[in-house]
Amino acid sequence: MRATVMYGAGDVRVETVPDAHLLEPTDALVRVTRAGICGSDLWPYKSMEPTETGRRMGHEFIGVVEAVGADVRTISEGDLVISPFLWSDGTCVFCREGLQSECLHGGRYGWGNVDGGQGEAVRVPQADGTLVVLHVGPDDALMPSLLALTDVMGTGHHAALAAKVGPGKTVAVVGDGAVGLCGVIASKRLGADRIILLGSNPERITLGQEFGATDIVSERGEEAVERVRELTEYGAHSVLECVGLEQAVETALAIARPGGAIGRVGVPEDDVTPTGVAFWKNAAMAGGPAPVRAYMEELLPDVLEGRIEPGRVFDQTGSIEDVPDGYRAMNDREVLKFQIKP
Amino acid sequence: MRATVMYGAGDVRVETVPDAHLLEPTDALVRVTRAGICGSDLWPYKSMEPTETGRRMGHEFIGVVEAVGADVRTISEGDLVISPFLWSDGTCVFCREGLQSECLHGGRYGWGNVDGGQGEAVRVPQADGTLVVLHVGPDDALMPSLLALTDVMGTGHHAALAAKVGPGKTVAVVGDGAVGLCGVIASKRLGADRIILLGSNPERITLGQEFGATDIVSERGEEAVERVRELTEYGAHSVLECVGLEQAVETALAIARPGGAIGRVGVPEDDVTPTGVAFWKNAAMAGGPAPVRAYMEELLPDVLEGRIEPGRVFDQTGSIEDVPDGYRAMNDREVLKFQIKP
Repeated sequence: MRATVMYGAGDVRVETVPDAHLLEPTDALVRVTRAGICGSDLWPYKSMEPTETGRRMGHEFIGVVEAVGADVRTISEGDLVISPFLWSDGTCVFCREGLQSECLHGGRYGWGNVDGGQGEAVRVPQADGTLVVLHVGPDDALMPSLLALTDVMGTGHHAALAAKVGPGKTVAVVGDGAVGLCGVIASKRLGADRIILLGSNPERITLGQEFGATDIVSERGEEAVERVRELTEYGAHSVLECVGLEQAVETALAIARPGGAIGRVGVPEDDVTPTGVAFWKNAAMAGGPAPVRAYMEELLPDVLEGRIEPGRVFDQTGSIEDVPDGYRAMNDREVLKFQIKP
Repeated sequence: MRATVMYGAGDVRVETVPDAHLLEPTDALVRVTRAGICGSDLWPYKSMEPTETGRRMGHEFIGVVEAVGADVRTISEGDLVISPFLWSDGTCVFCREGLQSECLHGGRYGWGNVDGGQGEAVRVPQADGTLVVLHVGPDDALMPSLLALTDVMGTGHHAALAAKVGPGKTVAVVGDGAVGLCGVIASKRLGADRIILLGSNPERITLGQEFGATDIVSERGEEAVERVRELTEYGAHSVLECVGLEQAVETALAIARPGGAIGRVGVPEDDVTPTGVAFWKNAAMAGGPAPVRAYMEELLPDVLEGRIEPGRVFDQTGSIEDVPDGYRAMNDREVLKFQIKP
C-alpha cells in the first residue's frame, strides 16, 4: 500500500510499504477514506534529524473497516469509523474517567509497528476502545467536519474547557491555526460573551470571524498584550494557547485576567520546563496569593466551633521584644511558627 | 510605639517608630493583640540586601479598634478585628468575585506609609473591606486558630481549592511548614480520602498526622517521587505545593496523577518563569493532549446537525501522492490545513 514517510526535516515521501494487516485479536483493519495533515506534523517537518528508516506519518483519519480481530465486539466489517489521534482501550482507569489521552494501554499512530493515518490503510489497535462508528456515507458533505473531530476540533474544545470558557466570559485565543480557529468554535459553542482572536493571516481571520470571533488582534508580542488590555481592561477570563511556542505561552499569561485560566493545547516547544511537564500529563496548575478575606467567612465558623485547630501551628509565643529571636528560631527550624503578644 | 523593622538578611530589630494614626477617612487604627511571623517573612530574612531605612514587617494580626475614619461604616471603636494579610476595598470587581487578593485598590502591610503587623498598632486602609469583627474576647483560647486565618489557614485552603481537593481524592502536600500543615487541615475538611504529607521534621509530622495526614513521605527529591508513586500507583489527584522553591514545584508536578491538579501557594523563588507569572495573578493553567475520544461523543451531534462546521479549516484537498506538497504548502502558510482523499 501507499503511505507517507518522513525521513527528515522537509523530506516527506509517499512510498509503497507493506500492506496493513491484523496483528492482535483486538485490532481493526481500516481502509482510509479521509486523512489530515496536522499542525503538529509540521514540527518534525521543520526540525527532524535525517534518518534512513523514516517515520510513518499521520494521526487524523476516517475509513471503512475491512477486517476485525477475534476479540473485537463493537466494530464490524463495512463500518465507517472515525479515530481519535491516539488509540486507547476504553477500559482502563483513565479511559473510564474520560481521559483517554492518558490510556494505560494506548499509544500513537506511526510509532512501533502501528501504521500512520496518512496512508491507504491502518491497523488500529484496541479497536473497541478507539473507534467510533459513523452512520453517514464515506463521501458525505460533512466529512471534513467529521475529520476535524479526530484532532483539531477536540483539541480546541479541550483548550476551551481547560480555560473554563462559559457564558459571560471574555475569551482570547492565541493562534490562528486550525486548532485556534476550532478554539473559537468551541468558545462560541460554550457560550462565551466575547472572543478575541490573536492572529494576522487575513483569510484565517475572516474564517475566525465567521466562526464567532468578535475582535481581532493582529499585533504580536508586547503590542498584542497592550491591545488585549485595551479591549478588556483587566485581561481575558479565559485564554486558549493554541501555538506551543514559549512566546505564545508568555503572551497567554500576560493577557489573562487576574484569577483567569489558560487552556494550553499547543504542543510545547520545551518539554522540560514545568509547564511542559504539566502539559504532557494534562495536569492543571493554579494558585497564588490566597484571598484569605473571602475564606475568613467560610472558615470562621469551623474555628469558632472547634472543628479545625490551625492555631496549633503556633508553637512559641513571645512579646514584641522577642520578635528578632522568633525570626532566628523559625529560620533555624527550632520553631514552627511564632505568635506575638505585644 | 514599638514595631519590627528589618534592615537586611538576619538583621531584625524592634524599634520605637512614630505612632500609627489615621490618615484617610477609610482607615481604622488597630491596637494589635496578636500577631504572627510568617514563613514568607523568612525570605527577606535569608536574602534581603542591607538597607539604612529598613522595612516594616508583619502582615498577620488581630487587634482592637481604637479609632476609625469618617467614612468607615461597618467597624467601630472597641471592635476586636482580624485582618487578612492584604488589605482590600471589598467593592472592586475582583473583591466582588471573592478574589480580594487582586483588589484594584488594595495593598500590602509594611509598604509605603502602611504599618506592618508586627508592632503595637497598625493603620488599616480600606477598613470596611479589609477587617472582620470577631465576637470573642481578645484572650480567648481560640486566638491562635483565629490568627491562623489571617494567612496560613486561608493559604492552605486556597491550595486545596486550586488542587481540586474533594471526596474520593488522594492528596499530596509538599512541605511540612505551617502552610503545608494547614493544607492538611483544609484537605481533610474538604473530604479528601487520603492525605500524603511530604516532610521530614518529626514534630511537624506528628502534628500533620493529628491534623489528618494518612501517610508520611520523609524522603526528598527523586526518592520522594518514587515513594509517592508506590503509595498511589499513578500519583496524587491533588497536590498542594506549599514551599515555593523550584524543586518543590518539580516534585509537585512529578507526583501529580495524569489529569491531576496542583495547587500552588508557596511564594515562587523565581517570579519570571511562566509558573511565577501565573502565581502572581492567581491564574490557572491547564491542558495537554486532548482526550478527543471522549469529546467525539459530545461534539458529533453538533457536527451531524450542522451547528458547528470545523471542517472549514480544510482549505485544500489532494490524493495521497499530493501529501509531500501538502506539507510544504502548510509549512509555507499557503494552506491552512490539507485534507487527503487517498
